[in-house]
Amino acid sequence: MKPLEGVVILDLSRVLAAPFGTMIMAELGATVIKVERPGAGDETRVNQPMIKGESGYFFIGNRSKQSITLNLKHPEAQKIVRELAAKSDIVVENYTVGTLARVGLDYESLKKVNPRLVYVSLTGFGQDGPYAKRLGYDTIIQAMSGLTGLTGEKGRGPVKAGLPMGDLNAALWTVIAALTGLAGRNASGHGCYIDVSMLDTMIAMLSVSAARYFALGEVPERMGNEHLGRVPSGAWQCQDGKWVQISTSENQWPALCKALEIEEWGRSPEVATNDARVVHRDQVKQRLAEVVAKWTRPALLDRCEKLGVPIGPVNDLHDVMNDPHVRARGSVKSFNHPVVGEFGALAVPLKFRDLDEPDVGRPPLLGEHTEKVLKERLGMTDAHINQLRAQGAI
Amino acid sequence: MKPLEGVVILDLSRVLAAPFGTMIMAELGATVIKVERPGAGDETRVNQPMIKGESGYFFIGNRSKQSITLNLKHPEAQKIVRELAAKSDIVVENYTVGTLARVGLDYESLKKVNPRLVYVSLTGFGQDGPYAKRLGYDTIIQAMSGLTGLTGEKGRGPVKAGLPMGDLNAALWTVIAALTGLAGRNASGHGCYIDVSMLDTMIAMLSVSAARYFALGEVPERMGNEHLGRVPSGAWQCQDGKWVQISTSENQWPALCKALEIEEWGRSPEVATNDARVVHRDQVKQRLAEVVAKWTRPALLDRCEKLGVPIGPVNDLHDVMNDPHVRARGSVKSFNHPVVGEFGALAVPLKFRDLDEPDVGRPPLLGEHTEKVLKERLGMTDAHINQLRAQGAI
Repeated sequence: MKPLEGVVILDLSRVLAAPFGTMIMAELGATVIKVERPGAGDETRVNQPMIKGESGYFFIGNRSKQSITLNLKHPEAQKIVRELAAKSDIVVENYTVGTLARVGLDYESLKKVNPRLVYVSLTGFGQDGPYAKRLGYDTIIQAMSGLTGLTGEKGRGPVKAGLPMGDLNAALWTVIAALTGLAGRNASGHGCYIDVSMLDTMIAMLSVSAARYFALGEVPERMGNEHLGRVPSGAWQCQDGKWVQISTSENQWPALCKALEIEEWGRSPEVATNDARVVHRDQVKQRLAEVVAKWTRPALLDRCEKLGVPIGPVNDLHDVMNDPHVRARGSVKSFNHPVVGEFGALAVPLKFRDLDEPDVGRPPLLGEHTEKVLKERLGMTDAHINQLRAQGAI
Repeated sequence: MKPLEGVVILDLSRVLAAPFGTMIMAELGATVIKVERPGAGDETRVNQPMIKGESGYFFIGNRSKQSITLNLKHPEAQKIVRELAAKSDIVVENYTVGTLARVGLDYESLKKVNPRLVYVSLTGFGQDGPYAKRLGYDTIIQAMSGLTGLTGEKGRGPVKAGLPMGDLNAALWTVIAALTGLAGRNASGHGCYIDVSMLDTMIAMLSVSAARYFALGEVPERMGNEHLGRVPSGAWQCQDGKWVQISTSENQWPALCKALEIEEWGRSPEVATNDARVVHRDQVKQRLAEVVAKWTRPALLDRCEKLGVPIGPVNDLHDVMNDPHVRARGSVKSFNHPVVGEFGALAVPLKFRDLDEPDVGRPPLLGEHTEKVLKERLGMTDAHINQLRAQGAI
């Protein structure tokens, strides 16, 4: 069996962060019922890249879910959500603060029908505080959290991380919140509410930089690929234009110099120790740039790996998807979609023993499971469903 | 009660990623017993920044834990680990592949004494595949996963994210693995093993970029702060040298132009629609650079917020720690340390209702809880403990 088999999640979330989180739980075995607007569905169903009228963007956060359409402004649809919540373990939602309370679908309302419910709200800035009403755009969260200010080349402007880490990090915290809530329910016998915000969760990752700030009052500057206390650590460009990332601790320096055939220079007093290299940082950086540029990347990687130098390629997506280790680990999989056909997918990266591993499912068509869910979970008749459809509730 | 109250975690992890994960669970209420080498302890206990002989680096991943010293090479210490594992719910370890099997502390050995054990191994590259034996350095994981290649300015070299996302992302997945394992144990009645790797977990976050690759075969290039399909989205520098991040959807453009007092230009055909602005991306970027530079950051933020333009400051750490919303949310807290005194800490960012919220504890001194754990959990006598100490086992 899969680890989350039997767990039922009512997914009132849209766009990227929260849906990515509920997808992870779906592929770990939970039954995830995603509620979408009749007609249009999740806002990202029209996001680029589009293939045959389907959105590849929607695919990345919605695999292995069931889709049911409900017009949450309609009282009958609200009633259905309450009935489904009564039979669910977890609700995840990411509406702006107060939206679901106005239609009687907030935690306080739903816990009346299910005192064992774990209810997770994800927003940009949380349920309270002066910015609570603002929308959470990934790039703005990255900027306000400090991540953007810490990223980029020394002496140049700030740069955001090249992935939407504000969204993705919040997605993982949404999963942690939901699973912690489940554990807490087992211990306490009752459910709980968890307020998760993109800004809070990104700030919680400031870690090493925050430690310096707390310890020394130091406001860290951008360092590019470099390391404050370890030289060399950085990225250099090879003869073929490809980049490598090198990270060298004190006792790996001789091996690096051997690999690059600069052993004599490496023993000179101004670069022989890490302390000396921190002082002569630019000189070391420049010398490595010159010598790395003499090698093609495959040749240099091969030589460094043989000599035990910590090195890796700065991969582009084509490199990543075709890397022999990535392929051996089964990180890249695919699903079959009724409209699009076979489409690639990055697997949920947890490998289980004694329980089944997650596998890659396909994303649902809009409303694909509406009838199934209403019949199987709520025992509705065809006549009732037709009536709801005629009323515009589903 | 706290959500993870009653959960016991035997923490055989060192350095950053896995300890950060177990710390999160400690502050959510789990009892975390961290095993450290006698004498030296966790490698990071001497990492910069140092304050009065204590490491601020160690602090960021080890709050609210108990510390017990055990020499894992000593048979008596191995026996203690087995006895503690028999009474634990979760083991987390991040030794290189095969290390713990050699001393009889791998999953297969420990599940014999505790068939309900959830055992999580975190490594750089996972338990199998061609790179399994390599060490997982954050910068190399960022590079190999594709994150570094996607980060940085257009037309310039790749840059890693300014936080150790390879480590921190893996830490969150370690928590997800452990909590999923707990849920799986409740459903199945038995424990499980979970193989987590820094590279796998970072690759799983390629999300939107991967969607483009899968859909179009496109290898995405670095975009700096910009957005492929939305213009303007980016960072601009104000008169006072501070930066702002702006993200503008189609219907927010008029508000942005009003805020910046460029309404007439904003209506001109080459920039009036998003499609037109994508074509004239550089022109828009340049014009915004000119007009943003006329404002101080506080004045511009204030004006934009009043007009509903999505904007945020590119904060440095001082800005973050002093932001009124961050303070109102209680994201920055502190603990009292017997040697260091009061020291700052970023709270675990989940706000519970109907269960207790996580609060910030202090990190343990090396071996502070050795006697307590051996006596309370294993019922050892003082004489036995003294003997173990004389043998060099603890």
